Amino acid sequence: MRWLKFTASGKTSWGIVEGDRVIAVDGDPFAGWQRTSRMLPLSEVKIELPLIPRTFYCVGLNYLKHLKEAADKRGEVPAVPDRPEIGYRAQNALIAHDEEVVIPSFATDKIHYEGELVVVIGRKVKHLTEQNAMDCVFGYTIGNDVSERSWQKEDRSLWRSKNADTFKPMGPWIETEADLEKMETIVRVNGKETNRFATADMIFGVVPFLVELTRYFTLWPGDVIWMGTDGASPDIKHGDVVEVEITGVGTLRNRFVREER
Amino acid sequence: MRWLKFTASGKTSWGIVEGDRVIAVDGDPFAGWQRTSRMLPLSEVKIELPLIPRTFYCVGLNYLKHLKEAADKRGEVPAVPDRPEIGYRAQNALIAHDEEVVIPSFATDKIHYEGELVVVIGRKVKHLTEQNAMDCVFGYTIGNDVSERSWQKEDRSLWRSKNADTFKPMGPWIETEADLEKMETIVRVNGKETNRFATADMIFGVVPFLVELTRYFTLWPGDVIWMGTDGASPDIKHGDVVEVEITGVGTLRNRFVREER
Repeated sequence: MRWLKFTASGKTSWGIVEGDRVIAVDGDPFAGWQRTSRMLPLSEVKIELPLIPRTFYCVGLNYLKHLKEAADKRGEVPAVPDRPEIGYRAQNALIAHDEEVVIPSFATDKIHYEGELVVVIGRKVKHLTEQNAMDCVFGYTIGNDVSERSWQKEDRSLWRSKNADTFKPMGPWIETEADLEKMETIVRVNGKETNRFATADMIFGVVPFLVELTRYFTLWPGDVIWMGTDGASPDIKHGDVVEVEITGVGTLRNRFVREER
Repeated sequence: MRWLKFTASGKTSWGIVEGDRVIAVDGDPFAGWQRTSRMLPLSEVKIELPLIPRTFYCVGLNYLKHLKEAADKRGEVPAVPDRPEIGYRAQNALIAHDEEVVIPSFATDKIHYEGELVVVIGRKVKHLTEQNAMDCVFGYTIGNDVSERSWQKEDRSLWRSKNADTFKPMGPWIETEADLEKMETIVRVNGKETNRFATADMIFGVVPFLVELTRYFTLWPGDVIWMGTDGASPDIKHGDVVEVEITGVGTLRNRFVREER
């Protein structure tokens, strides 16, 4: 099932995508819902951010090529993490599918994308085991972990480099039935493929993260975990359109624009 | 004005504290409210967490003695930050006044408090100036940035060390009229004073942080910024009661208990 938050005729609601149509529902997928008789062409609705997570988790280094690329840039030998460690991103930075990533006028040209699988939590859980961890996963969506790399070198906590307003596109919807083992992540800039990797080819997968996190944390419905990216990005310029496709989930598309001085 | 979120007779609402009583209001202080005729003794209500912030900001190193102490522990020369840099904490960890901080059974004895001033944002703002920055401040509350120091040494992003469930007590209420320049932060363990410092004695104050953050970020009503702490903490043990008082704001009190194996 493909859950979409959308606005049409001034009303924002959840809906279920079927082919090129969306069926509006009353309620929401976490607390309870039922179908309405309202059906709209997908092309005629404004796609909204699926949700604002209570806590916004994000894995920093979880694919080998990306790890090596990041280490090379720092002139270091890549150190592969020996356990699942989580980081955070900031809610202010979230935008929806088709909304614009605004590059601040005073940013450098080192603007990079990172296409990521996003795990959406469906239930309040703690102390998960390898056996039951996946039961708390409501579905998957897609994230673009936009970064300003010159700030990233200077920031103690990646505050501006990763969390400037509009730097966290997420969407377009939440897919509940995709098979992680079959997914490919494909990134395109202005229609031209620039990255492709097996989404599941993580250093630590979804299950080890869920087990380790919930030794310490309660996960809540609507929490998201961005699972990291592989490979490197070219510098993204004003007017570029970046698409992150994850097969079986969907395609997240955002245009980048540079703020005028 | 002193804004309290509380529960009485099974109903949770906002109220205004006057002396030892609380007057319930309809609505909330951010979106609009009005007084009701319901008045209760403060001692008879359950004090709730004032709010769950949309984004949870926290300054890591913002007082000189704390900075020096942290550097000494790492065997380093203290490096004073040359600009305001922000970090993040996680919403899962928040608890209210008088709720218990639960130390995981597998944590070490290096459990420390950090008594902090918390700035509560009242309006949606960006691009603040030195002149108008304080206009977005709704009021102040108090935070205890509980830390497990052995995990802190190992964590890449302070994920467990700072954000384990219950490690972020905040409250008891939001005070809208306190004068930052006159505040003192006083910490007591089991009634005995262990720290005292001028709350405003920060490396970077509230205004520089608001100006710098809003170059990059939109702040939203209910966002919080924890402003850092001074000095050091003794190791906190099972059964200890930690009180963080900020004069003119209030006292946040929490008992620490060690989870049984």
